[in-house]
Amino acid sequence: MATTNIQTQEADLSTLVITAEELLNHWQGHRRVTRRVIEAFPEDKLFTYSIGGMRPFSELVMEMIHIAGPGVKGVATGEWKSFGEEDEFTGAAPQTKTELLALWDKVTAVIDSVWPQIPLHRFHEVEAAFGQYEDSLYSSVLYFIDNEIHHRGQGYVYLRSLGITPPAFYDRS
Amino acid sequence: MATTNIQTQEADLSTLVITAEELLNHWQGHRRVTRRVIEAFPEDKLFTYSIGGMRPFSELVMEMIHIAGPGVKGVATGEWKSFGEEDEFTGAAPQTKTELLALWDKVTAVIDSVWPQIPLHRFHEVEAAFGQYEDSLYSSVLYFIDNEIHHRGQGYVYLRSLGITPPAFYDRS
Repeated sequence: MATTNIQTQEADLSTLVITAEELLNHWQGHRRVTRRVIEAFPEDKLFTYSIGGMRPFSELVMEMIHIAGPGVKGVATGEWKSFGEEDEFTGAAPQTKTELLALWDKVTAVIDSVWPQIPLHRFHEVEAAFGQYEDSLYSSVLYFIDNEIHHRGQGYVYLRSLGITPPAFYDRS
Repeated sequence: MATTNIQTQEADLSTLVITAEELLNHWQGHRRVTRRVIEAFPEDKLFTYSIGGMRPFSELVMEMIHIAGPGVKGVATGEWKSFGEEDEFTGAAPQTKTELLALWDKVTAVIDSVWPQIPLHRFHEVEAAFGQYEDSLYSSVLYFIDNEIHHRGQGYVYLRSLGITPPAFYDRS
């Protein structure tokens, strides 16, 4: 769905404190942690294990994938599909950890290639991400990252309850 | 402990995309969600409930408090104590939800009052937060927020496993 982006958020741009490249590095640092969390799951538990009726970690990861890939393209271009609408990351959902990691890596490469194409003025444009979530685009990007941290934190509990020590949260290398 | 801040990170400041005020609002929006998660816990479970040997949510919240209050002051002033060293937020740990929420609100007010005093150039200075975590200060602030999201996400699992629907992650009002 095309967006009707016309508005730019009021912001005192003389007080900007985070660069586009820093925001990208911040995101990719988190994605490296999340990748290690995927790897830490036993193959079967990745797709089946749940606490309190929540989704298995593989499904949380698929949510991250459908946000991140189409999301970064939307931010760059202003072209949004509805969330979960068919895109290059849909189709046969990964059935193995190896397949899931391969899809994860594909999205990582997409982010790296698309990010530098985002015009800087876009970050303070207000637009409905996925045709639905109206916000400044810098804020939508933070949401993409926060949503990943949020669900990955849930994955940590899954791992702990399985007796597995999760990767260090602070290590973004 | 005093810091020996002399270094400023190399960054292309012509590509800045997030303002100081936006970063503050982002943080406080998350803190409003976390406050609602604290409220959602039954009184006893807040201090005792655990999965997989992890800390009860009250202890995760105390970590957030000891990061956020002294953290924002450190960013503003360059004066850091070791993490968990005695500060105005230590002393008798809250024993009730009401006390914990009161301490939470005290930190919220500290952040609001101290944040505007942070000189903008500070965000790209490299400094050892809490005398230990060497990073650009914008990155340390993101870490403070990310750590809260991470542990709050764990609280969501605790709540779900208790049969309690957590507050909406996306509602930052």
